[in-house]
Amino acid sequence: MTLLRDEGLTAEELAVWRMLQRAQVRVTRHLESDLLVAHDLPLASYDVLMQLAEAPGRRLRMNDLADRVLLSRSGLTRLIDRLQRDGLVSREACAHDARGLFAVLTDLGAARLSEATPTYLRGVKSQFIDLLAPDEIARMRTLLARLAEPS
Amino acid sequence: MTLLRDEGLTAEELAVWRMLQRAQVRVTRHLESDLLVAHDLPLASYDVLMQLAEAPGRRLRMNDLADRVLLSRSGLTRLIDRLQRDGLVSREACAHDARGLFAVLTDLGAARLSEATPTYLRGVKSQFIDLLAPDEIARMRTLLARLAEPS
Repeated sequence: MTLLRDEGLTAEELAVWRMLQRAQVRVTRHLESDLLVAHDLPLASYDVLMQLAEAPGRRLRMNDLADRVLLSRSGLTRLIDRLQRDGLVSREACAHDARGLFAVLTDLGAARLSEATPTYLRGVKSQFIDLLAPDEIARMRTLLARLAEPS
Repeated sequence: MTLLRDEGLTAEELAVWRMLQRAQVRVTRHLESDLLVAHDLPLASYDVLMQLAEAPGRRLRMNDLADRVLLSRSGLTRLIDRLQRDGLVSREACAHDARGLFAVLTDLGAARLSEATPTYLRGVKSQFIDLLAPDEIARMRTLLARLAEPS
């Protein structure tokens, strides 16, 4: 408690942060388990495929991809190795840019992502959205916008 | 969009979930970077030490520990290997319980955790709490309570 006071935090404030972590852990565990059971696809793989699918040309520099998912640089390298072995992602050098490799979504990767997406969306609905009333979802959005992209 | 409708989600609802992920990624990246620079301690290690410090007898079964942090079982095993090598955690068998090993916080681990905690708390304050007004923190707490431990 003294430590908290020294750093200008109250116990309640720290509790809110830890609730955010717990909420994230709980929902993430459900999604992970659903994706593994139904599609043999870990959530981290799903997230990487989804980030690539939404990027222009279905490709991202490894550094940019690492910024978008919660993986260390070495963890991401191992994951991309695995996805490449499974044919879901390829690595490509950039002709006019020496800043390293791109990870590129393959057609097989896009198909795998499409297969898994209904499972993912059902999990988001049942484990997150369905626990909040419509006005709470709107309030949550306002609060999270401040946290996700602070000005 | 058709997919979303099929699963009963709106685009706004999915966006809120992804904001929660982004907020978590952003804050987590800051904490990770601060802890590495100041204490050469990855955030995952900090989280494990903190979970053990708060458990009765400063010990948790590997399975219970895995439930509390966002790591796969194999990722946790590797991390505990590293922490054990550094003397921050020990492994102990449980005399009257065959359900596997405990991870136990050592005195050195407790000291390392104490050193790093001010950095961690400052990060939580500057990257999370300071971005919200006091009434927003209270509202966030109410919403997250529903998500962290649904009844």
